[in-house]
Amino acid sequence: MDHYPSKLFEETVSELAKLPGIGKKTALRLTLFLLKQSVPDVESLGNAVINMRNNIRFCKQCHNISDSELCEICSNDQRDKNTICVVEDVRDVMAIENTTLYKGTYHVLGGIISPIEGIGPDDLTINSLVKKVSDNKVKEVIMALSTTIEGDTTNFYIYKKLKDHNTKLTTLARGVAIGDELEFADEVTLGRSILNRINYEDYLVK
Amino acid sequence: MDHYPSKLFEETVSELAKLPGIGKKTALRLTLFLLKQSVPDVESLGNAVINMRNNIRFCKQCHNISDSELCEICSNDQRDKNTICVVEDVRDVMAIENTTLYKGTYHVLGGIISPIEGIGPDDLTINSLVKKVSDNKVKEVIMALSTTIEGDTTNFYIYKKLKDHNTKLTTLARGVAIGDELEFADEVTLGRSILNRINYEDYLVK
Repeated sequence: MDHYPSKLFEETVSELAKLPGIGKKTALRLTLFLLKQSVPDVESLGNAVINMRNNIRFCKQCHNISDSELCEICSNDQRDKNTICVVEDVRDVMAIENTTLYKGTYHVLGGIISPIEGIGPDDLTINSLVKKVSDNKVKEVIMALSTTIEGDTTNFYIYKKLKDHNTKLTTLARGVAIGDELEFADEVTLGRSILNRINYEDYLVK
Repeated sequence: MDHYPSKLFEETVSELAKLPGIGKKTALRLTLFLLKQSVPDVESLGNAVINMRNNIRFCKQCHNISDSELCEICSNDQRDKNTICVVEDVRDVMAIENTTLYKGTYHVLGGIISPIEGIGPDDLTINSLVKKVSDNKVKEVIMALSTTIEGDTTNFYIYKKLKDHNTKLTTLARGVAIGDELEFADEVTLGRSILNRINYEDYLVK
């Protein structure tokens, strides 16, 4: 039971401590930091957060975060609408976009199936993906979820939903990371990279 | 050069990444968390921060954070106004208050002297402390700063400013922490705790 010298101060500490990974000590430190910043600086932080929550939208096609009804990628004529990469959230879209190697579009699930956290298939945008595949001539669905138990479960659930449609289902290549020493690769990854070995000429092209 | 799918999203990430100890990855994670919270919850975070910065005050006597002109401790008749404990910031006040063993008042410096961070004596409330000691019959000033180079420097600076006044200058007892095994105490602390040993009966009273 800490005794705070100010209600305003206490409220800020307790609000910040609600954020994931931020305990009370960190919240105190952040609050003291904010007190030392200028009023406009603190207002721009507070307003950015409120503004975003109130005005952000989700692309009606891929469900990615967007400032308009259709995100930049879905509204871009240059992007292949018949190749869809299924990802967990916006961070994955940003990571793949940063490679500049992908010219298709995305489908953002908004999470992965996780019974422990109480997230089931209906909490995600899986039905919308199935509908998209049924309604359109989607050539390929690339399942690009994390290789965790939850990611694999979600991949398999999507696979079962889509396997009877006339659509190619692929997943990211798993293997030894480029630049990594072979001896430090884990056994499972190394084993897969031998089984799924690729033509050397295909590798040279990259 | 990340390509964000939304300006609103990007603004929140970049505002959060300005906080100390929060990098871009953490800011992204926090922003995604905020997006999943309800509008009232996010508004109460944003408004708490803005509200605090705009309306918080500092006690005109001890400079601690306060909601009014005089903080609760300085306006409490039961507290000894002639014993002043000098601390770095509000966290130290809260830590000492939690012991419930101190009945004096405080003087919050607002930092410690740190040439590296460009903080000199004039950036702190040292002059106000000296004035308080000159003007009033202060019995005792307890210097309770951290035992770091900066803390020791600040202690010594205050000591030089106050030593010619008719006021007792003390500092916190340093020694082996209660509950700690002797063999794990560092040499400097252990050495000090032998030199500054106390009467056993005084220890029993605590």
